[in-house]
Amino acid sequence: MADAVSTQDRAATTVTKTATIGDSEFDRDTAVTRRAGEPGVYDIDLSAGWTIINAVNGGYLLAVLGRALADALPHSDPFTVSAHYLTASAPGPAVIRTDVVRSGRTLSTGQASLFQYAEDGTEVERIRVLASYGDLDALPDDVRTSAQAPAIPPIDQCFGAGDAPEGAPPVPGSSAITDRLALKLDPSTLGWALGAPSGKGEMRAWFGLADGRDADPLSLLLAVDALPPTAFEMGLKGWVPTVELTVHVRCRPAPGPLRVAITTRNLAGGFLEEDAEVWDTQDRLVAQSRQLARVRLG
Amino acid sequence: MADAVSTQDRAATTVTKTATIGDSEFDRDTAVTRRAGEPGVYDIDLSAGWTIINAVNGGYLLAVLGRALADALPHSDPFTVSAHYLTASAPGPAVIRTDVVRSGRTLSTGQASLFQYAEDGTEVERIRVLASYGDLDALPDDVRTSAQAPAIPPIDQCFGAGDAPEGAPPVPGSSAITDRLALKLDPSTLGWALGAPSGKGEMRAWFGLADGRDADPLSLLLAVDALPPTAFEMGLKGWVPTVELTVHVRCRPAPGPLRVAITTRNLAGGFLEEDAEVWDTQDRLVAQSRQLARVRLG
Repeated sequence: MADAVSTQDRAATTVTKTATIGDSEFDRDTAVTRRAGEPGVYDIDLSAGWTIINAVNGGYLLAVLGRALADALPHSDPFTVSAHYLTASAPGPAVIRTDVVRSGRTLSTGQASLFQYAEDGTEVERIRVLASYGDLDALPDDVRTSAQAPAIPPIDQCFGAGDAPEGAPPVPGSSAITDRLALKLDPSTLGWALGAPSGKGEMRAWFGLADGRDADPLSLLLAVDALPPTAFEMGLKGWVPTVELTVHVRCRPAPGPLRVAITTRNLAGGFLEEDAEVWDTQDRLVAQSRQLARVRLG
Repeated sequence: MADAVSTQDRAATTVTKTATIGDSEFDRDTAVTRRAGEPGVYDIDLSAGWTIINAVNGGYLLAVLGRALADALPHSDPFTVSAHYLTASAPGPAVIRTDVVRSGRTLSTGQASLFQYAEDGTEVERIRVLASYGDLDALPDDVRTSAQAPAIPPIDQCFGAGDAPEGAPPVPGSSAITDRLALKLDPSTLGWALGAPSGKGEMRAWFGLADGRDADPLSLLLAVDALPPTAFEMGLKGWVPTVELTVHVRCRPAPGPLRVAITTRNLAGGFLEEDAEVWDTQDRLVAQSRQLARVRLG
């Protein structure tokens, strides 16, 4: 209940917030610190502000690793990032160990692993990523696309955690990350929250950061994994842990809210894929992602 | 010309060939040898039989790395494999260095890098992969899918390198890999070969191995990257090198030819994505892949 209240307060005040890229909750909570004397090694205290129930959001973790690689590599923009999730992360201290795999003129490739500490102090690996970075601003402007922006109603016709469509519980539930995001779900993919899932593997929303910070390539790594799981609309309950997630950042996003559309076509053998598209206010497809996730059936 | 002839010979005799999983060109050419005294290190002589012009096919290389990881990990089936292509491979000696990242009950995760040798004998890394393996046969049979198998005409109405639709050059061109594959392209995605590309980012084909060897999870790693690039049908010529390719193997394929459908929706800034679906003779979606590739425009 306290969550719901604070959520509504934040939702009500979002419009007046003016955080900027480099000075925002997201920037502060993804900031990594170079470890003196150990090149390529970074420390961070994982924020409890980006958790869903007790789990640290996978997109937030991807952004943290992306920050470390942007510092370790000669290029600063993630073009393609492949992450394999090994064990569940918890808020608190973590260390990121990076490795420059290849440095090219237009692309460089790096590897990063995030570790946390066991009771006895030994390091436990949480995530390992391979990523290729470049310079988005150096790309030509040519675009030939057959992709269509998702049809999502205007923001004021979509629903966030602070809103209450008749009879609906808080959406997507009382989790800390809810307060960090300005997430407005398409009513046509909100059936699960009303106890009437559509049965379709679709989830769509307007996505922003609650403090008004505009999107950049790093926050796109968060955006692709910040919506409720499509499994909810397929009538499945429970956790849908990510096994692997790969993101392609195709373009630097324009200011303003993003539209995120996630589709699942194939649930089989207890696994499903989630394909995400992220579109900016200039109707450009700025990111694509696909993840393989496990579903707990029944 | 010699290529074309041998291709036709092979096409004509394909039906009578009876290679099996474990005893075929593909199995021999992807076989890796454990290096004595160096656990997790494997040697291989990359075959010239899987080259396109002078480049070693990326799918063949993925299968080679997949073989090494299947030996190094406690699980034998690739579930999700993410590969970042660093430098161009050439036929000849290579070494694969694997690392077990995590061993779980149902999934294990590993890393593998393929190196070749520079003039001075130093190792040059060609590809690095992260992969999670499991046991496909241990998965439940549940399937809930909205995916539709691609509409490809019957094989005898599709065209391979040995066929000659009026005025068409050999398809997909005189390359060694052509002789190893039983690839029959959907006429509706064959315009590029006739000098009349459709302009659509689509490529579809029946896929098999020329010696009749049935598909398995490892050969699916080849299948997702064995068709001509969709860029050809978009009217682009020249090379389309892969930056990153991730494959999800969703199901063990049934015997018989596979249907592969590749779609590109967004060409922008000199990069495009290729989404591949692989379907088996039981109409099951057995693999999905997405790659980010560079295009040389104009």
